[in-house]
Amino acid sequence: MFSLVVQVEVQPDRREEFLTGIAANAAASVRDEPGCLRFDVCSVAADPHRFVFYELYTGVEAFAAHKASPHFTQWRRIAERVLVPGSQLNTPGELLCTHTSEESS
Amino acid sequence: MFSLVVQVEVQPDRREEFLTGIAANAAASVRDEPGCLRFDVCSVAADPHRFVFYELYTGVEAFAAHKASPHFTQWRRIAERVLVPGSQLNTPGELLCTHTSEESS
Repeated sequence: MFSLVVQVEVQPDRREEFLTGIAANAAASVRDEPGCLRFDVCSVAADPHRFVFYELYTGVEAFAAHKASPHFTQWRRIAERVLVPGSQLNTPGELLCTHTSEESS
Repeated sequence: MFSLVVQVEVQPDRREEFLTGIAANAAASVRDEPGCLRFDVCSVAADPHRFVFYELYTGVEAFAAHKASPHFTQWRRIAERVLVPGSQLNTPGELLCTHTSEESS
């Protein structure tokens, strides 16, 4: 399974616009893409303008489909306005093991 | 919900010992701790000796209980042998939104 950790920094006056935009992208990704299995958005305790996304896809093809989706295009337009330029750091990889006791949603 | 992203670098000759140790810690954390909801371990595509953990807890008290558990003590003993000293980077925060279509395990 393809995993992606994304670290971003948001411009000080763009926090609300960022949160609305990434929430819409996360929801549409799992709802509309059969290959997007999970999309979490987390704050960072040390800095109210830093955030981390944790995304899981069935494979690299599913991640390519994600990047070709209309909601991703819309998110990138918002990202260009709200993120600190050059701040986004993507760490792709593979999910090696997972354990959960979460209720299914 | 308390979230934690952990980035580590493993010594070149300690990869197998690391993988066995972190898999045991992840499994025991979700199995034995009511407050540990998820523990994922991911590889990093760019470097076979870097890894990312993604952990979710019901709150800071649950994370404190995690660090007081016997399996965490055992993991830290292994971590001291297998990780590159000073390489571990913890990013605690809060889960702001989550979407999943994963099968419950």
